[in-house]
Amino acid sequence: MKAAIVTIGDEILIGQIVDTNSAWMAHKLTLSGFEVEEMQSIGDNARQIKDTINDLFERVDVILMTGGLGPTKDDITKKTLCEYFDTTLIFDDSVLDNISNVISHFTTLNELTRNQAYVPEGCTVIQNRVGTAPVTWFDHKDKVLVSMPGVPYEMRYVMENEILPRLQEKYDPEAYLKRVFVVKGYTESGLALHLTEFEDNLPEGFGLAYLPSPGLVKLRLFVRGEHRLPELEAQERKLKNLLGDAILVEKDVTVEKLLGERLFEKGLTIGTAESCTGGNIAHLITSIPGSSHYFKGSVVSYANEEKINILHVSESALVQHGAVSEIVALEMAKGAQRVLNVDCSISTTGIAGPDGGTEEKPVGTVWICTTYKDLHTVRKYQLGKYREANITRASNLAMLQLMEMMG
Amino acid sequence: MKAAIVTIGDEILIGQIVDTNSAWMAHKLTLSGFEVEEMQSIGDNARQIKDTINDLFERVDVILMTGGLGPTKDDITKKTLCEYFDTTLIFDDSVLDNISNVISHFTTLNELTRNQAYVPEGCTVIQNRVGTAPVTWFDHKDKVLVSMPGVPYEMRYVMENEILPRLQEKYDPEAYLKRVFVVKGYTESGLALHLTEFEDNLPEGFGLAYLPSPGLVKLRLFVRGEHRLPELEAQERKLKNLLGDAILVEKDVTVEKLLGERLFEKGLTIGTAESCTGGNIAHLITSIPGSSHYFKGSVVSYANEEKINILHVSESALVQHGAVSEIVALEMAKGAQRVLNVDCSISTTGIAGPDGGTEEKPVGTVWICTTYKDLHTVRKYQLGKYREANITRASNLAMLQLMEMMG
Repeated sequence: MKAAIVTIGDEILIGQIVDTNSAWMAHKLTLSGFEVEEMQSIGDNARQIKDTINDLFERVDVILMTGGLGPTKDDITKKTLCEYFDTTLIFDDSVLDNISNVISHFTTLNELTRNQAYVPEGCTVIQNRVGTAPVTWFDHKDKVLVSMPGVPYEMRYVMENEILPRLQEKYDPEAYLKRVFVVKGYTESGLALHLTEFEDNLPEGFGLAYLPSPGLVKLRLFVRGEHRLPELEAQERKLKNLLGDAILVEKDVTVEKLLGERLFEKGLTIGTAESCTGGNIAHLITSIPGSSHYFKGSVVSYANEEKINILHVSESALVQHGAVSEIVALEMAKGAQRVLNVDCSISTTGIAGPDGGTEEKPVGTVWICTTYKDLHTVRKYQLGKYREANITRASNLAMLQLMEMMG
Repeated sequence: MKAAIVTIGDEILIGQIVDTNSAWMAHKLTLSGFEVEEMQSIGDNARQIKDTINDLFERVDVILMTGGLGPTKDDITKKTLCEYFDTTLIFDDSVLDNISNVISHFTTLNELTRNQAYVPEGCTVIQNRVGTAPVTWFDHKDKVLVSMPGVPYEMRYVMENEILPRLQEKYDPEAYLKRVFVVKGYTESGLALHLTEFEDNLPEGFGLAYLPSPGLVKLRLFVRGEHRLPELEAQERKLKNLLGDAILVEKDVTVEKLLGERLFEKGLTIGTAESCTGGNIAHLITSIPGSSHYFKGSVVSYANEEKINILHVSESALVQHGAVSEIVALEMAKGAQRVLNVDCSISTTGIAGPDGGTEEKPVGTVWICTTYKDLHTVRKYQLGKYREANITRASNLAMLQLMEMMG
């Protein structure tokens, strides 16, 4: 069962927004057994929308569209779908009721919002419980096209509660079987060399894919069809033998989620003292639901004054070694452990860039200290030139360093 | 001059990663005068890659591809481009030199990395100074295809330093003229109603697009062609008259960037005290280069203990009103202002979800306090059910609330 995802909106094509909908939908579709053949982003342009539908209906069974359903003139998806499916817009009272409901707690109905209750005649209308744009489902021969709003949380709500269950019922697709291993201690090419023979001997239909990230490689072994499970399990055993201790975890999980699970299992608490990562580690940790069980707090000490006043870093260390130094990283982590009264702490101090580098401490120099009860580890990392990448990489590496200590 | 962006990788189609490359490239291409006609994400699949190129060369002048250039077997872009352009791979010593250079500070050359020095014969090879996969440029009749690595910071470096300058020199495309206004105080439909007449009377070729985000609408007025600048300026004046004080700023800028600029201009410092936003506001503020000029630090006080010990929130306020309350928000912001010794502070305390809601304080309840010297504002916001959306929205709204106070 093949699917395609189409996101509609000029704001995507001019790069004003990043399309996060496609990845989310692709992930859910894959887990439900659909094979996502391609994703397209196109403009708010009737000709292009119709051409794309025509083209995709030749290759896939299901087209999921988001976007172009807003109340303003630049949004033309609904009208264009009417043209494509040769139908007209009719007013739907149940949609109006839903709209009134949704907006009741923050505004009142105006003409444009009311107009959102017009839907193409003959399609199946699905109420959007979290927004004003209705969802429309078109059966077309044995194929399906669904048009959903582009607002991410609206699309997600509708997909999970309405669209995925209906698609599964209609198509009952073949299962996508996979095993994901998060592997440490290898570069991508080093790991591939280590697995050359294994990869060469994989049975027909099996795939092995590598996804590198800072300090880690995610390895995905996959095949389609429930009946191939025993084979998958056999290959999985081979792979685990080959990788041994290099496997950090046997599932597809972010570092922050994994760290959270470890802390929760061990009943430990954590806090951070962040300079160059500017709160990003705290943000990542607290992005996980339930993190309040183990995360107690954070001190983002960008200025030296905060390092001294809140974390009790010694002035002498700052003066003699500078803020980006082993001793300051250590004192920050120890300070955080004490001040936040936590079992584990992470500190970062470095030069994220683009400015602030020197000959001795170029942009990308980062000291990371992690503490686990009475133990501590402090290490220097030489990262790159890009602020954004440095913040991301340092955050990831810091959480990995702590997990390494926790064993 | 039309362009298309193609990102290649099975990891995109199964939703393992979000494609951020396309938006970044689209933004740069648009600013350079190219019209991005569409974006596609396809698999590591030779037939699909070739079909996509064929199809796109019928519609656009420039195809920019990223991905599928890694050292592992699942990456087949280079081989497929050889098939498409009917050429073969040859070993390039200058590429090997560059690879050796790039990896020298963290690892040594292995066979797979060395193989990355093979490039299609007859194409223009462009060195990738920040990674091991070479960039290849194919001239095809009067059209161009460029293949770049999918690692975001590598692609960005190569685009800015090599590809965009060459594309501009070759095509000298017509300018894309735009004016962006960040508008406050309107919903998207409310703003569209207010601008109905203006929009109806726009000259041929002009467009007006709406992009809503929490608390704001970004309005984009645009047209193509340098010679239409006087007309654009005339429409811009009309629009500014219609919007008056509702215009927060006359450029396309994130709230964190705008806040940073305001603070820097006024010589003010800032710190945050974050509970439900978990460090995200600090992360956003410090994502801006140069933020160390105004950002001093942050206390992420997830637990009550941290609110009391570091921010000096009174125990009585916590006991009598609970952590999610007006008084605690106020005491957190005041505490942060004192402890961090800053001119302005932001505090957030709320229930991000999915758990922790009650009848009286449902998920999505957030109190935000902002201080500006001796002044403070404290407000309650009722957000939605989604943790991720609530964190993002609360962060945005908090920065807007502070800017409102600063005038």
